[in-house]
Amino acid sequence: MINVSIIGSTGYVGLELVRILSQHPQVALKNLVSKSYIGKSYSDVYPNMTGICDIKCIDLDTAKIIDESDIVITALPHDASREIIPILIDSNVRVIDHSGHFRFRDVLAYEKWYHAYHGMEALNEMAVYGMPELYREKLRSARLVGNPGCYPTCTVLPLVPLIKENIIDCDSIVVNAASGVSGAGRQAKTDYSFCETDNNYKAYGVSTHRHTGEIEQELSIIANNDIKISFIPHLAPLKRGMLATTYAKLDKKATTKELLDICRDYYKNEAFMRILPEGVLPEVKLVAGSNYLDMGLVVDERTNSVTVISAIDNLMKGAAGQAVQVLNIMTGIEENTALTNAPIYL
Amino acid sequence: MINVSIIGSTGYVGLELVRILSQHPQVALKNLVSKSYIGKSYSDVYPNMTGICDIKCIDLDTAKIIDESDIVITALPHDASREIIPILIDSNVRVIDHSGHFRFRDVLAYEKWYHAYHGMEALNEMAVYGMPELYREKLRSARLVGNPGCYPTCTVLPLVPLIKENIIDCDSIVVNAASGVSGAGRQAKTDYSFCETDNNYKAYGVSTHRHTGEIEQELSIIANNDIKISFIPHLAPLKRGMLATTYAKLDKKATTKELLDICRDYYKNEAFMRILPEGVLPEVKLVAGSNYLDMGLVVDERTNSVTVISAIDNLMKGAAGQAVQVLNIMTGIEENTALTNAPIYL
Amino acid sequence: MINVSIIGSTGYVGLELVRILSQHPQVALKNLVSKSYIGKSYSDVYPNMTGICDIKCIDLDTAKIIDESDIVITALPHDASREIIPILIDSNVRVIDHSGHFRFRDVLAYEKWYHAYHGMEALNEMAVYGMPELYREKLRSARLVGNPGCYPTCTVLPLVPLIKENIIDCDSIVVNAASGVSGAGRQAKTDYSFCETDNNYKAYGVSTHRHTGEIEQELSIIANNDIKISFIPHLAPLKRGMLATTYAKLDKKATTKELLDICRDYYKNEAFMRILPEGVLPEVKLVAGSNYLDMGLVVDERTNSVTVISAIDNLMKGAAGQAVQVLNIMTGIEENTALTNAPIYL
Amino acid sequence: MINVSIIGSTGYVGLELVRILSQHPQVALKNLVSKSYIGKSYSDVYPNMTGICDIKCIDLDTAKIIDESDIVITALPHDASREIIPILIDSNVRVIDHSGHFRFRDVLAYEKWYHAYHGMEALNEMAVYGMPELYREKLRSARLVGNPGCYPTCTVLPLVPLIKENIIDCDSIVVNAASGVSGAGRQAKTDYSFCETDNNYKAYGVSTHRHTGEIEQELSIIANNDIKISFIPHLAPLKRGMLATTYAKLDKKATTKELLDICRDYYKNEAFMRILPEGVLPEVKLVAGSNYLDMGLVVDERTNSVTVISAIDNLMKGAAGQAVQVLNIMTGIEENTALTNAPIYL
Repeated sequence: MINVSIIGSTGYVGLELVRILSQHPQVALKNLVSKSYIGKSYSDVYPNMTGICDIKCIDLDTAKIIDESDIVITALPHDASREIIPILIDSNVRVIDHSGHFRFRDVLAYEKWYHAYHGMEALNEMAVYGMPELYREKLRSARLVGNPGCYPTCTVLPLVPLIKENIIDCDSIVVNAASGVSGAGRQAKTDYSFCETDNNYKAYGVSTHRHTGEIEQELSIIANNDIKISFIPHLAPLKRGMLATTYAKLDKKATTKELLDICRDYYKNEAFMRILPEGVLPEVKLVAGSNYLDMGLVVDERTNSVTVISAIDNLMKGAAGQAVQVLNIMTGIEENTALTNAPIYL
Repeated sequence: MINVSIIGSTGYVGLELVRILSQHPQVALKNLVSKSYIGKSYSDVYPNMTGICDIKCIDLDTAKIIDESDIVITALPHDASREIIPILIDSNVRVIDHSGHFRFRDVLAYEKWYHAYHGMEALNEMAVYGMPELYREKLRSARLVGNPGCYPTCTVLPLVPLIKENIIDCDSIVVNAASGVSGAGRQAKTDYSFCETDNNYKAYGVSTHRHTGEIEQELSIIANNDIKISFIPHLAPLKRGMLATTYAKLDKKATTKELLDICRDYYKNEAFMRILPEGVLPEVKLVAGSNYLDMGLVVDERTNSVTVISAIDNLMKGAAGQAVQVLNIMTGIEENTALTNAPIYL
Repeated sequence: MINVSIIGSTGYVGLELVRILSQHPQVALKNLVSKSYIGKSYSDVYPNMTGICDIKCIDLDTAKIIDESDIVITALPHDASREIIPILIDSNVRVIDHSGHFRFRDVLAYEKWYHAYHGMEALNEMAVYGMPELYREKLRSARLVGNPGCYPTCTVLPLVPLIKENIIDCDSIVVNAASGVSGAGRQAKTDYSFCETDNNYKAYGVSTHRHTGEIEQELSIIANNDIKISFIPHLAPLKRGMLATTYAKLDKKATTKELLDICRDYYKNEAFMRILPEGVLPEVKLVAGSNYLDMGLVVDERTNSVTVISAIDNLMKGAAGQAVQVLNIMTGIEENTALTNAPIYL
Repeated sequence: MINVSIIGSTGYVGLELVRILSQHPQVALKNLVSKSYIGKSYSDVYPNMTGICDIKCIDLDTAKIIDESDIVITALPHDASREIIPILIDSNVRVIDHSGHFRFRDVLAYEKWYHAYHGMEALNEMAVYGMPELYREKLRSARLVGNPGCYPTCTVLPLVPLIKENIIDCDSIVVNAASGVSGAGRQAKTDYSFCETDNNYKAYGVSTHRHTGEIEQELSIIANNDIKISFIPHLAPLKRGMLATTYAKLDKKATTKELLDICRDYYKNEAFMRILPEGVLPEVKLVAGSNYLDMGLVVDERTNSVTVISAIDNLMKGAAGQAVQVLNIMTGIEENTALTNAPIYL
């Protein structure tokens, strides 16, 4: 059994981790850290977990966590990770972190997009970006993983084969994406109240969203060239799920079918990448509750462009599901263990 | 492996059955019958199932189904079951039926509440009501099971211990319940369109809903006395889930804690009955996506009454989940196999 | 022109008041008090009001308000009203208050249900309960009005004719009601976030909701007898709107049609009471955005009971709309002025 | 009084027209034609209109309609308009049509995008495109108006000043838009059922949506140049409302403030165009229930592009509201009559 502790266990990513890992046959959940609910049973905080996970939440007890954990998953506000992660790594506990800190090759890029000080350069050197489809080999032995953002996961993976095959004009990429409200976490904020978000739809963080830098980093690595994108996220009245609509000019003539075939071939060994048939496009309900990334695309001859549509569950492939996928890789467990649930649709 | 076929596989109960059974380690899905989608792959109909269940839907081929199935689950409109079930039973295929036909001890009760002819008295004699918590022993060897309605499941089980202990006045029971829209099935009807149901809430079938007779039948058996209830269902803007609010006068003084203890004791060996702690009441999101029935209650000294709250996922414990639970019992498989998913909450 | 100021103008009731009154041809909006948004334009707080109401929000400036207002409407948290209302009344400014303070004939009833000290007995003596259909004459000259709660408005009015005609057994009344989330006001609380409330349905305040006492008070006055009810409110995933389902035993035989006729006759001169035809039942979408109260009912011979269904928009007839109706009465303006909008349906 | 009849009165655009016009002080609603509900009272079809509009729906009675109507509004499926409109025009009844027929200068463009035969060239010659902000003068005396599509209204108007001032590169326009479900009309289709659309988000009609041609036509006229756009509509789980996110490369350097000032100046006399302050972006809830078009924009120096956000209520400014605005212009009534409602927000 792999002993796993979660720091920041009562946010939505934490809940999703507990929900997945409580069904994982090779993982033992050890410590659930939650500053807000110290001493409370997990099922008091989330009564849906009654009888499934009744572990008592604890305060941050570093010694105990180090002692009892093979892997720690941190799902903390972006500032809180800084205090605990260096200690864990020093003690040879492996870490999967959900903050933005370890997603950037270049600490300065982090600082620019997050308007924050980093200060953990050495750790950053050893961190692996937790996207199995791109970095699986490095993840096997990774000591510290920066789990990718939801928008980058949803946006980058579908573009990889199209960039590698020089099909799209990388200067023309425009990404419109819509996320469910759980992406904002479990916050007591009027902005995310039912009355303010239901039956509403809006753009936010236009041209300034910090996931922009993360997307550009990965696309640039793939293209071996500096890529800038326009990224415009939206908030949709969904609990979970995310859809990205990516536009790009074509650099060479191609049909929808040809491009789908290229993608299908590229990802043919990936368990969680589903390239939908021509004429079928991803929808949030087709991935919600699962770890799949669905993609489809449409070539428009009239404008010589392609529109790529991709969808994930932001809490699953966009956060907790991807973390468990990474955990499985790190520990040599079958990669899809505890991640085989079909999308819930309804 | 148990070979299972589903007739009526592309409605919402069918989808839920396929979703559950595709993860069931001891079940092989054989034939998926769907008159509307003959020849189409299941994942063409429901693209969320891409790569999970790509079986081709077939027309009703009785010989093939009999030949290849140990158990057939029918999830058909109420009239369609009549044609196929007698043949299956004759051929020694065991059947779990989702129509109303085999839920009534008395064929006349069926005919009264469903305004329809029954005409399968002999079959009805052998049918077992598919509620494991009440009829587990009979289900082990059942050849034909009438899978309970969603409202009856949600309403009856919480009342059993209270009636058995003579705590409530059975002449005073008033049930208000609210169901998600999936309870109406996958219908192309304006009434269930997004625009007509979102942000709406309404009562329907007041005093005439056909589940009333089913609830009364089971409560009367438990009370060993003729019980009539007032049952008022409502349609709430939910995809899945159901909550029943049952009022009754108390026949003896009791505290909330005492009644909860009675219920907790009564159901202490049941895997899917969760009696929540005092002060915590069921909510739809606490059961959605799972096979649990959550219950809670509040005694009101001022009016000498008790309000019992219970919640299920109408597609799971209220339909497909319960059917799989019954299937597990019928075949000697561990009862909660493929039914251990935690409620999804988000 | 009637000069009106609003204290507590940036909550949801405040917004609804501003929305209605900005279209009122005989009302001039003077001061909009909002402690949270002092100095901000109303349309900065609520950009939907851009160009419609750009008045600057001010701090509580009693002298200015007294000087410039004929009527003040208070839409404050229950505690805040206490400080300002006595001063306004002393200065001969008429007040319509949305808190619970002035809804009870008996200050002790307030203190029991609100678990709070009242201490304004003299003011309470002069207060009129702001339900035009019951107290129109008194309202014409009222100096202080306690605007009714939403649940009491929705529940009491439909029962008045049935109680007056001795049709129902007043000891058997069970009220199940569901409210939209705006009923909780504009709060930064996790409980009312989109993720916690969407696709959820739950009971709350079972047997303890403070509107119970208000409903019982009005029913008891009508019955000239002490009435206790069971009141079980629920939270439904709606932005606005409310539906009450009231059960009672019949004291005399009657048909659905007869009872509807009694209600229709009783309310025949009321502009906002709609008794729907037999076979049509109220729904939230049929009243949302309007000041109507819709009612319908179904007699059940089998159980000798009646189920009364009633619906209002909790922000309109349940709060701001009713306040404007009262304001119109107090000032001799045509009662439905600024309240003629048809329900929005979509 | 202007006598108005509506053909196709029981769809959602019809409902919205009846809802608006029943409050219009200078309009008398005469004939409500509905093939599906002949002989039924309008309030039987839409009980929200009880006591507001109880007119009996009639079959298409051309003579009666011609006799009794100054203006006829048609809100029919695209094929049905063809039969009635020529007769009405011949009889000197003025027509505002909601189909696609009279939105195109060039009949061939209609035929290309609608895959349908037009065959009313002469009528098309006299038709005026019903966008008051662009064609107000022509509308005053128009005999036949092609009421614009919702997406074109939302997309074209915000771009007009930017194109006129040569600010954007017209070859780089990418429009992502999301519409509420009411845009699909009142259809008994599984695709628009609550269960299929709630908590879902998807693209549709990618590169093929027929509003593309309408948008391109108007932008090309403004630019005096042939413009092609990429247009990708999405379906969001909203009842009403629409938001367009339009990306374009800048042709000259400019700040967000400068571009907003240009737009604000351009539309300074328009009652329904609201250019929001810098830093505030349109949201669906800020326009829902009103006839406003809200716009905002963000210049991104990094990518030398601008993102324009615009929102309307698809049933109001996107259909019925715009039709009433046009009707007011055609008849010399104050343009905003019956259209002054504030957006509903909640």
